[in-house]
Amino acid sequence: MTESSARVDLNSDVGESFGRWTIDDAAMLTTVSSANIACGFHAGDPSSIRRSLTVAAANGVTVGAHVGYRDLVGFGRRDLDVDTPDLIADIIYQIGALQALAIGAGTRVSYVKPHGALYNRIVHDERQAGAVVTAITEVDPSMVLLGLPGSAVLGLAERAGVPTATEAFADRAYTPQGELVSRRIEGSVLRDPELIANRIVRLVEAGTITAIDGTEVRLHADSICVHGDSDGAVEAARALRARLTAAGVQIASFAGV
Amino acid sequence: MTESSARVDLNSDVGESFGRWTIDDAAMLTTVSSANIACGFHAGDPSSIRRSLTVAAANGVTVGAHVGYRDLVGFGRRDLDVDTPDLIADIIYQIGALQALAIGAGTRVSYVKPHGALYNRIVHDERQAGAVVTAITEVDPSMVLLGLPGSAVLGLAERAGVPTATEAFADRAYTPQGELVSRRIEGSVLRDPELIANRIVRLVEAGTITAIDGTEVRLHADSICVHGDSDGAVEAARALRARLTAAGVQIASFAGV
Amino acid sequence: MTESSARVDLNSDVGESFGRWTIDDAAMLTTVSSANIACGFHAGDPSSIRRSLTVAAANGVTVGAHVGYRDLVGFGRRDLDVDTPDLIADIIYQIGALQALAIGAGTRVSYVKPHGALYNRIVHDERQAGAVVTAITEVDPSMVLLGLPGSAVLGLAERAGVPTATEAFADRAYTPQGELVSRRIEGSVLRDPELIANRIVRLVEAGTITAIDGTEVRLHADSICVHGDSDGAVEAARALRARLTAAGVQIASFAGV
Amino acid sequence: MTESSARVDLNSDVGESFGRWTIDDAAMLTTVSSANIACGFHAGDPSSIRRSLTVAAANGVTVGAHVGYRDLVGFGRRDLDVDTPDLIADIIYQIGALQALAIGAGTRVSYVKPHGALYNRIVHDERQAGAVVTAITEVDPSMVLLGLPGSAVLGLAERAGVPTATEAFADRAYTPQGELVSRRIEGSVLRDPELIANRIVRLVEAGTITAIDGTEVRLHADSICVHGDSDGAVEAARALRARLTAAGVQIASFAGV
Repeated sequence: MTESSARVDLNSDVGESFGRWTIDDAAMLTTVSSANIACGFHAGDPSSIRRSLTVAAANGVTVGAHVGYRDLVGFGRRDLDVDTPDLIADIIYQIGALQALAIGAGTRVSYVKPHGALYNRIVHDERQAGAVVTAITEVDPSMVLLGLPGSAVLGLAERAGVPTATEAFADRAYTPQGELVSRRIEGSVLRDPELIANRIVRLVEAGTITAIDGTEVRLHADSICVHGDSDGAVEAARALRARLTAAGVQIASFAGV
Repeated sequence: MTESSARVDLNSDVGESFGRWTIDDAAMLTTVSSANIACGFHAGDPSSIRRSLTVAAANGVTVGAHVGYRDLVGFGRRDLDVDTPDLIADIIYQIGALQALAIGAGTRVSYVKPHGALYNRIVHDERQAGAVVTAITEVDPSMVLLGLPGSAVLGLAERAGVPTATEAFADRAYTPQGELVSRRIEGSVLRDPELIANRIVRLVEAGTITAIDGTEVRLHADSICVHGDSDGAVEAARALRARLTAAGVQIASFAGV
Repeated sequence: MTESSARVDLNSDVGESFGRWTIDDAAMLTTVSSANIACGFHAGDPSSIRRSLTVAAANGVTVGAHVGYRDLVGFGRRDLDVDTPDLIADIIYQIGALQALAIGAGTRVSYVKPHGALYNRIVHDERQAGAVVTAITEVDPSMVLLGLPGSAVLGLAERAGVPTATEAFADRAYTPQGELVSRRIEGSVLRDPELIANRIVRLVEAGTITAIDGTEVRLHADSICVHGDSDGAVEAARALRARLTAAGVQIASFAGV
Repeated sequence: MTESSARVDLNSDVGESFGRWTIDDAAMLTTVSSANIACGFHAGDPSSIRRSLTVAAANGVTVGAHVGYRDLVGFGRRDLDVDTPDLIADIIYQIGALQALAIGAGTRVSYVKPHGALYNRIVHDERQAGAVVTAITEVDPSMVLLGLPGSAVLGLAERAGVPTATEAFADRAYTPQGELVSRRIEGSVLRDPELIANRIVRLVEAGTITAIDGTEVRLHADSICVHGDSDGAVEAARALRARLTAAGVQIASFAGV
């Protein structure tokens, strides 16, 4: 097999403990190249965030701010109608808190990835999307915004001069239009590690993915999101990484440490 | 009257709104030279913190992080037995959040002043005091730590190379040893603006204050704390500032903007 | 003047303090016949709720549970997409907490009034409306549900055998269809106490209100909501009560103490 | 072996999930006779509390209110200096919330067991102990207070006419005075299931336990606390229950369902 020049990032959500409710993400942090670290609003107390940052730094993993709605009990997964000035301030607050903890852990915040209901909303909602971009612009416009290809928020970021990166989801089915199949639809979530790995290798090498109707659709992704919150998540991520590496794909962050 | 070369800072607690529970601090921010801004743990939502920062910046007021225990309902005034790693992370988190909001508002965080029960505890508690100093050292050891003269935390800061500043309380009585008279004791809180102003002018010019037993005690204070949370607080602060200015004392932050 | 046999309830939101952010509602509790008491999710810490309950009991004011979304910083005014089982449990939790505090204060919870964004949402959203009705049915189906005439939640309550009461808003304009004019529209909020009193006396006596286009529209209201969170609110409520009393209208709760 | 007439309760902490941070307690609820259910202040969101109540009811397990300090991130394990009126209201609030959820789940709250730092503090602190007793007295003085033998809070409860029950800890060493050996001391926590079962059978049958120095000390316990938050906790509880049952000891709540 000839060496591929392809390269992709693997990202996962970490830092999602809260107090005694601990989620051990050390293993995932030896597998991915980018860590979306919770910032305290949907998950993450300062002390556990700090531990995740230290492990990320020790493993050379690039750190991103996983900013979300202020909704601990709902884990930031419930749609919340936040005013624009409040949302701007909420996001700046979260990024800043993570930045300071990152300095102490010997690393830095290189990118921002909105979480959960906020992530979904700013695919279409221009107002909240604009608030996210404004927040990044105010704090540090050199941070990369990681999001869904074609989303409103990435469009606004590009116009504002904020660098962007796109991601695909390893375990999700796609429509022929290159959009995610809703979780409510049968077959939307893939579970076969072999199938998943094949799809992602092809995505990275050829820039296409097989849609749910069998057609091939073009898709560009700078990063592949591997979920961290289910049983077997680490094993699946490691298997994917091994397959990508075996195919000559370099695993590296889109943003640098 | 010959021009005095004396100079002192006036500091007050601001940014203490939370959501719809708003405390308007715009007037106080035209009076003091340093603003201790709540960071969200005992008070202050990101949006209201941001507004206070904007007003502070517009008035050239130096900004400090008013870090406290995570206890909104108790306003950070209840003693809380926080583990050392948790306290370090809690303080870094608060400072970082304020730093990022400050950048957006066109200013920066120049100092740290612990709040409420934390402030009182680290006068004597070496463990928690050490956590505060460690937090500052990790984030930015050029920030000044503002505290009580002779407190454990200032001693530790000096040994760690963190710059310090001391404060006196405009409306509090002092013991012959130069310590605050407990609030539980009759006469511990002063209410006469004329008396308060006379005491502070003398403190700034002569470096002494009249203790509760009538003796004169030496006291050095780089800053005078004027409380912001009572009726008439702004008027009292303005009266004090006017008297200091009339006496030729320059009102300026110990830290620079 | 012949004695009118009309009777109406006056309700207001109270118990909205949180920790040191205190809102004094003692004066309002000498004016209204029903008190919508916050239950801790959008406002109200247990200690301040208890104080409001004690004052309500001392004044013979009927107590209702003002249940809301779990969103302190948003004061329950932001739309939140809560799952049905979670919303049922959230509402039961709030009612129960208030019931126990009421027992200690020598009174009881006689009705439930949803607050803020929840109130608005269950005018139309059958799913969340059903959750509110289920919660009441589980805890105590003899409690009255207070809401907007024609709302989805009142319809579901009636079908479930939960007693209902309707309210009108003293300071709000109505459409010719008897619905509230959106706050975004000019003229939606009335400020003239004389005009407000005239409208409400007519509403109570004749069962009609003058719509924003000048037409008379039929409207039935068991209770009149007087807002408690603005300057002059108590004075406006007292003026309304005086006018109603002068017109021979009896001010009494729809629910009994 | 002749049938023993001995009888004891087994209690465990449950309902300790919060949002997506779930702790599955269904297995423990098939093992114990009493369930200390978190009430939302140190753990437990309303929806997960409700699920635990439903499982407890289905298994005929008696329900107690596991009331704690308002400190989610610290899980109620950090000492907090709460004012007396606030603590009374906090405890009433928690009990009431659980009572209402229990009604919906077809059961009731029969007892109260303070949690964590509050539990430890009211062994000696008469002021906070008094607040706990006052809260129970106001809500329902027929509820049993479960606590440490010889603790201040049990003494106050007895004087106030509140029924009490005492507990021993299955996995903890005791001093020759019948007190718990501090967790900081080597050997304070027992791990051998066989040893633990032998000790508890002897405690129930003979009313004595072997202290850490080898002496036998008299100890009365109406209930045995089995911890629920460690690996193997359910297996240990089941083994203890099997041994007690094999010895003819009846497992039953001190309070009735």
